[in-house]
Amino acid sequence: ALAPRFFKKTKAVARGMAGKAKGERGCSGQGSAHRREEVFPYPEISNEELAEINQFVGPVEKFFNEEVDSKKIDQDAKIPPETLQGLRDLGLFGMQIPEEYGGLGLSNTLYARLGEVTSLDGSIAVTLAAHQAIGLKGILIAGTEEQKAKYLPRLASGEHIAAFCLTEPGSGSDAASIQTRATLSEDGKHFLLNGSKVWISNGGLASIFTVFARTEVVDKDGQVKDKITAFIVERDFGGVTHGKPEDKLGIRGSNTCEVHFENTKVPIENVIGEVGGGFKVAMNILNSGRFSMGSGSAGMIKKLIELTSEYACTRKQFNKKLSQFGLIQEKFCLMAVKAYVMESMAYLTAGMMDRPGFPDCSVEAAMVKVFSSEGAWACVSEALQILGGLGYMKDYPYERFLRDTRILLIFEGTNEILRLYIALTGIQHAGKILTDKIKYFLTRLQDTLGRKVDLGLVGDHGVVHPSLQENAKKLEENVYYFGTTVRGLLSRFGKTIVEEQLVLKRVADVVINLYAMTAAISRASRSISIGLRNHDHEVSVPQDQPFPLRLCSWEQAGCISGELDQTLP
Amino acid sequence: ALAPRFFKKTKAVARGMAGKAKGERGCSGQGSAHRREEVFPYPEISNEELAEINQFVGPVEKFFNEEVDSKKIDQDAKIPPETLQGLRDLGLFGMQIPEEYGGLGLSNTLYARLGEVTSLDGSIAVTLAAHQAIGLKGILIAGTEEQKAKYLPRLASGEHIAAFCLTEPGSGSDAASIQTRATLSEDGKHFLLNGSKVWISNGGLASIFTVFARTEVVDKDGQVKDKITAFIVERDFGGVTHGKPEDKLGIRGSNTCEVHFENTKVPIENVIGEVGGGFKVAMNILNSGRFSMGSGSAGMIKKLIELTSEYACTRKQFNKKLSQFGLIQEKFCLMAVKAYVMESMAYLTAGMMDRPGFPDCSVEAAMVKVFSSEGAWACVSEALQILGGLGYMKDYPYERFLRDTRILLIFEGTNEILRLYIALTGIQHAGKILTDKIKYFLTRLQDTLGRKVDLGLVGDHGVVHPSLQENAKKLEENVYYFGTTVRGLLSRFGKTIVEEQLVLKRVADVVINLYAMTAAISRASRSISIGLRNHDHEVSVPQDQPFPLRLCSWEQAGCISGELDQTLP
Repeated sequence: ALAPRFFKKTKAVARGMAGKAKGERGCSGQGSAHRREEVFPYPEISNEELAEINQFVGPVEKFFNEEVDSKKIDQDAKIPPETLQGLRDLGLFGMQIPEEYGGLGLSNTLYARLGEVTSLDGSIAVTLAAHQAIGLKGILIAGTEEQKAKYLPRLASGEHIAAFCLTEPGSGSDAASIQTRATLSEDGKHFLLNGSKVWISNGGLASIFTVFARTEVVDKDGQVKDKITAFIVERDFGGVTHGKPEDKLGIRGSNTCEVHFENTKVPIENVIGEVGGGFKVAMNILNSGRFSMGSGSAGMIKKLIELTSEYACTRKQFNKKLSQFGLIQEKFCLMAVKAYVMESMAYLTAGMMDRPGFPDCSVEAAMVKVFSSEGAWACVSEALQILGGLGYMKDYPYERFLRDTRILLIFEGTNEILRLYIALTGIQHAGKILTDKIKYFLTRLQDTLGRKVDLGLVGDHGVVHPSLQENAKKLEENVYYFGTTVRGLLSRFGKTIVEEQLVLKRVADVVINLYAMTAAISRASRSISIGLRNHDHEVSVPQDQPFPLRLCSWEQAGCISGELDQTLP
Repeated sequence: ALAPRFFKKTKAVARGMAGKAKGERGCSGQGSAHRREEVFPYPEISNEELAEINQFVGPVEKFFNEEVDSKKIDQDAKIPPETLQGLRDLGLFGMQIPEEYGGLGLSNTLYARLGEVTSLDGSIAVTLAAHQAIGLKGILIAGTEEQKAKYLPRLASGEHIAAFCLTEPGSGSDAASIQTRATLSEDGKHFLLNGSKVWISNGGLASIFTVFARTEVVDKDGQVKDKITAFIVERDFGGVTHGKPEDKLGIRGSNTCEVHFENTKVPIENVIGEVGGGFKVAMNILNSGRFSMGSGSAGMIKKLIELTSEYACTRKQFNKKLSQFGLIQEKFCLMAVKAYVMESMAYLTAGMMDRPGFPDCSVEAAMVKVFSSEGAWACVSEALQILGGLGYMKDYPYERFLRDTRILLIFEGTNEILRLYIALTGIQHAGKILTDKIKYFLTRLQDTLGRKVDLGLVGDHGVVHPSLQENAKKLEENVYYFGTTVRGLLSRFGKTIVEEQLVLKRVADVVINLYAMTAAISRASRSISIGLRNHDHEVSVPQDQPFPLRLCSWEQAGCISGELDQTLP
């Protein structure tokens, strides 16, 4: 049931149930029907794309299974040159760089799919992500044609490795407070860059850096202000040095170090986007990459299921196989549910991002990141626990997965910051409650005071398969509770809600779980509708009663939203 | 509020409120009043004992702060000889060995107190625990006078180090299935020992081993059966070899290896207890040691609070100190509550164990172990998270604490096995519900069908301080819900409940939380009654509304027990 799924991308018109629903439902306007169609049915990919991805996945899986020695990479704290070369040969340094610049030109969906494999080695995953999910992403999404032509080809081939230089000793989550400065030369032709960055992934390997620095900008009123600007910096520009690699708990084969810039001369052509527009560039880069943590984590968990199930089906205690014990089965249930849900969230988000017009899915991506990083952390610990003492030993891979996974809750935005971002972005759209783009049903909360939400998910014309009616109803109920709760919070706190971090955390948790429920129901509904192999297993994910599921998504969301008002301090 | 507390040991008569209540309450018999007095008031120690412990704690703290280099111990995977010698000089190898045999003769309470300090280095804590909490414990609790006189002095001094040899490759949680065999010689003077043990802490250092092996025993009917026997084995007996140290995730400075016995000649005088009575010896040893994980974990968490609060009060982001953010405060709340509760549980249990007659507190000790190992795991991860990226670096101690802590959920009985033990032991006493020894209130559940439990905690003659009446009422309510739920489960499943591990897990969780609530209320009630410094903080632990507390003990217990019936598969 957990084998990777490939989804045919919808074009303009939703097919099947959703199409019918669109024509026949009268109570919601065209607008909200359109929004519902963004999540129902679940996004699919074309047969052509399916063939394309299969062409890549096979060799990459083979390479990771046969050539990558994760234990050695971890021990030596270094990815061997031949492994790096193998990654280059597979094109993995340019997965999302367009083909015209020498990349594979993968969609977000296909990139996520490959992430399921590359995540099997945390050090490699971080090295590749630091390079292309953040290191070169600025050039890709905000660079000029000249910048792209100049830099992307050698980045796509992996001849050049990129790094993303934002964090400083005094500036972690508070990215706007960086002190690195870029001063325009008198002739106006270059900037002089000075400052130090810390925890730069690939910092010691990279020859191309995306660097953020304060610059003086004259605003409309003629006042001089400090604003952040993004630069493409080549190591060859001079004055670029790096510290020794950090000694880390995990992802030890990835290179992390300080990078120092001392009077580094950066030509003005190397500004990414506008002078003073760097903060937005930084956020766009970070926001665009997070969704892939969902499929990466799911890939790792599926590997853990494979490894631990082999053990649980052979190891005997008390004259029974471990797999026969409820407390062991529960751990598999947890892993299966988490992997299914994070996969569903990741590919739903990727599918939306792949639509024409590149909609902003930053909140969804943040939700995927929080859910999947915490899910991965919980699952890898349970997988280790299945092995008992063996799991604690370095002869087995579990302790490495545990160490590698712990960074997921910290980097690419700590989960604390992301929860606030998720909740506050939602509340900014209060009335609609959330970004009105995807969670269309949340936009209808204004209509729901005192009655249940009808999202058009269930009933004769609903978009959800009849087998999942009960779950869809629960989703609607939870949306209803959530809506009334958030309205209550807003009337209670007003604008000061931004200071109520404990409240915001709970709001974020509920939103994340609602998105998780939506993604899982949408996917399972599609699977049963088209009679996908093992769809009964998928349907059982939302339907099953076992505790992990109840506690991890469906019930929790309802319980939390229902209790929210009473439990606030 | 979290400074260690010392408690005057009650002798026979409960003082203060409880004494009054005992005389005046008429509805419960002497028996149940006695049981209530075992948990109310909170156990105390005498001024003499307080002076005694202070005499030890100071030098040990100084040694750990100034002489123990935990980073180096972790890196080198070895405790340096001078550190081991320092531990010997402080008497830490013989903490509970009676003074007549050269030990410190500490009570369980004082042993727990020193455990708060020794736990600051996981490798040392495990080395010391493997030696005396399990390695030599068999001699202490079941050895003959001759065995004690022969072995304990050099074990107490640390000249000899002990190890506990139970686990085998095919026999982890299922201890009864060991294959190591001891065969009686023809002259009946010695056993020949053959077999292999795995994951033996101190296996490479020890000169004295407590070894469990199958032996042939003739039962009453004259039939020959295999039964387990415990032996004291000296390395000098010959045929004892060990493998190379295991390469572990954490507690790397502790020595863990395989130990092999090949035709090792063990004199019959070296049988511990009876031939064939070894399984009980093993369980008694393991059961007696677990309670100290509570104070050890609490000691570590208090250290983490000290370290992280220093950081949170100086590090600024967004022009605020981290300590001003709700999401950071929440982490401190979690750590403070968990440390307080596990401390309370550990010292309550230790205090009971210190009573004359050595009551069996194995279920309580198991509850302390499960609660504190999982609490420690959660807290150390949150402490690391407060530091963000810094926490992931080996320059800081957090990642080591994380690695060291992970073993707590596995060793000394996995938490899975212990949950089943807790639940099943309770259900064996069904009707009374739990061991009738300490949770006296649970014994009264039979009276409570259809009405609230009156445990005599609240009201004019209640034993709980008036400030905590609401909490005590909640405890009574939760006991009531729990009782009805368990009765329902028993009538539903009957004896087959032993196979319903998911049900048993929840039963165990509820019992653990009820014990946690009892311990915290008892302790806080004492603190406020005697006007202890900072008692207002202690009282706020059960009273505060913040989420971690609600989710971690009080509310969770109520919620789980209330929902139990509905949520079962």
